[in-house]
Amino acid sequence: MTAPYLHHRVITWGDTDAAQIVYTVRFFDFAMEAIEGWFRSVLGLDWYALNIDRHIGTPFVNVAMDISAPLTPRDHLCCAVHVERLGRASLTLRVLGRKEDGTESFDARHTCCFVNSQSMTAIPVPPEFRTPIEAYCGAGGGITPRAPRREAESA
Amino acid sequence: MTAPYLHHRVITWGDTDAAQIVYTVRFFDFAMEAIEGWFRSVLGLDWYALNIDRHIGTPFVNVAMDISAPLTPRDHLCCAVHVERLGRASLTLRVLGRKEDGTESFDARHTCCFVNSQSMTAIPVPPEFRTPIEAYCGAGGGITPRAPRREAESA
Amino acid sequence: MTAPYLHHRVITWGDTDAAQIVYTVRFFDFAMEAIEGWFRSVLGLDWYALNIDRHIGTPFVNVAMDISAPLTPRDHLCCAVHVERLGRASLTLRVLGRKEDGTESFDARHTCCFVNSQSMTAIPVPPEFRTPIEAYCGAGGGITPRAPRREAESA
Amino acid sequence: MTAPYLHHRVITWGDTDAAQIVYTVRFFDFAMEAIEGWFRSVLGLDWYALNIDRHIGTPFVNVAMDISAPLTPRDHLCCAVHVERLGRASLTLRVLGRKEDGTESFDARHTCCFVNSQSMTAIPVPPEFRTPIEAYCGAGGGITPRAPRREAESA
Repeated sequence: MTAPYLHHRVITWGDTDAAQIVYTVRFFDFAMEAIEGWFRSVLGLDWYALNIDRHIGTPFVNVAMDISAPLTPRDHLCCAVHVERLGRASLTLRVLGRKEDGTESFDARHTCCFVNSQSMTAIPVPPEFRTPIEAYCGAGGGITPRAPRREAESA
Repeated sequence: MTAPYLHHRVITWGDTDAAQIVYTVRFFDFAMEAIEGWFRSVLGLDWYALNIDRHIGTPFVNVAMDISAPLTPRDHLCCAVHVERLGRASLTLRVLGRKEDGTESFDARHTCCFVNSQSMTAIPVPPEFRTPIEAYCGAGGGITPRAPRREAESA
Repeated sequence: MTAPYLHHRVITWGDTDAAQIVYTVRFFDFAMEAIEGWFRSVLGLDWYALNIDRHIGTPFVNVAMDISAPLTPRDHLCCAVHVERLGRASLTLRVLGRKEDGTESFDARHTCCFVNSQSMTAIPVPPEFRTPIEAYCGAGGGITPRAPRREAESA
Repeated sequence: MTAPYLHHRVITWGDTDAAQIVYTVRFFDFAMEAIEGWFRSVLGLDWYALNIDRHIGTPFVNVAMDISAPLTPRDHLCCAVHVERLGRASLTLRVLGRKEDGTESFDARHTCCFVNSQSMTAIPVPPEFRTPIEAYCGAGGGITPRAPRREAESA
């Protein structure tokens, strides 16, 4: 297992807005696509299989993102996905989006809960997922929690 | 001036995902639409006019959201937009999304910077915007900053 | 019943692309939102209720659109929805998108089939939908089919 | 030059709707992404470079699509892009979307015009684009125009 998992994304015309840079909301699409790729790669199944075949949902209950550099279709985006915290029923992932030259574009933290997708009630992280997540952390995919995220800078 | 500004949104089929609830990223669309409506209502111009006519951009540098209840097209969403902080060159807004029965669905905090949209360098919030923003806060559109947002719950 | 049904839409910043006009794909969002509004208004239920409560789906099998004028957030879009053809198991709607001054922006034709959403097999249009659709046509919501859509112009 | 150009796309969770298949409008995103990839591959530059660096826009004036099979995140989509017609100032592309097993999912025809992106007036297809497009057709990337697209089937 290689860690961290890297997700590459071509930035498209449809991602831009009239400021001729990527529209804010698209950054969340980028992060979610990277996380979905991580599920597929590390857990061995994507959200569709998880929901439809296993009746397990992973609704996101908290999302936070710092955006430090705009993106355009001239950039190639590479997202690294790290495990920040694996709880009893929740999982916090960090997604670091970088440009080809290594410049950080965004730093996102996404927390989801594992639920029974029919009752929408929390369930413990199933052991068959906990094991590969722990292995992923052991292989270098974890992250040392930083100090509480900086609040919006005084400016 | 009525405060807080309220933005109503019909939830559509296209907002849903295969879990038969609104897809996570759509919550950010909802919050951004509410904020754009607030700009139009309180500042008197939307982002398009701001960028194209005034060469002023407002890139978002930090976005955070707690999602506490899922949404479906059965819900009618109402977003209240509050000013949390008006800095020298930045603005932090809180968007509280509620269902028709008052249930909170999400609580978002968005911070943007005012920039010259050609040089992408920060500029002070223009006085003609500062004045109506302060009036909006005076009319009850401000918000007492809460304690630092809760981090992902232990679960 | 008033016909044709009109669907109003604020054009937002998020609808634009780097050409500083609405991105092509958003026109299809506009048309679909108008059609969904028409279902809600004329049939009395939206696609979510139709699928979840009635197990009826309406997948679109053919979509065609002429785009004659770009849109920006300075425009207010008004879509008129007409019934072009009600078949045994299918429905063809025309959506005419106009700006506030009456300029036509797009002319779309969408054909959906009624299916059992679990087996995905075609079903006849249910009588409780056929009746209001026919009433809508009787009230002026129908449209005389035009000659076959113009193919891409020689240019 | 290999023809036709093939564009591969992972179907994601965010592409689905509450019917647990890909939402209609996403098919247009898929086709546009394939076309943008074709521009990049065959013309050597994407829409962003074309617009920003060359002040050339390619607004789409007509789009038509037959959707014959639904898609889910279990599918891997492969789009083949063919040139159907190269006019004086316009270009018609066909995008055939197939699943991994070869099943056709959609067949789209997109016509764009070349314009000066500042005046939005039509311009002849620039020779440096006409040459590679003709070479692409010569290499097998063209398509024999079919009879006029079938109208919505009687059903």
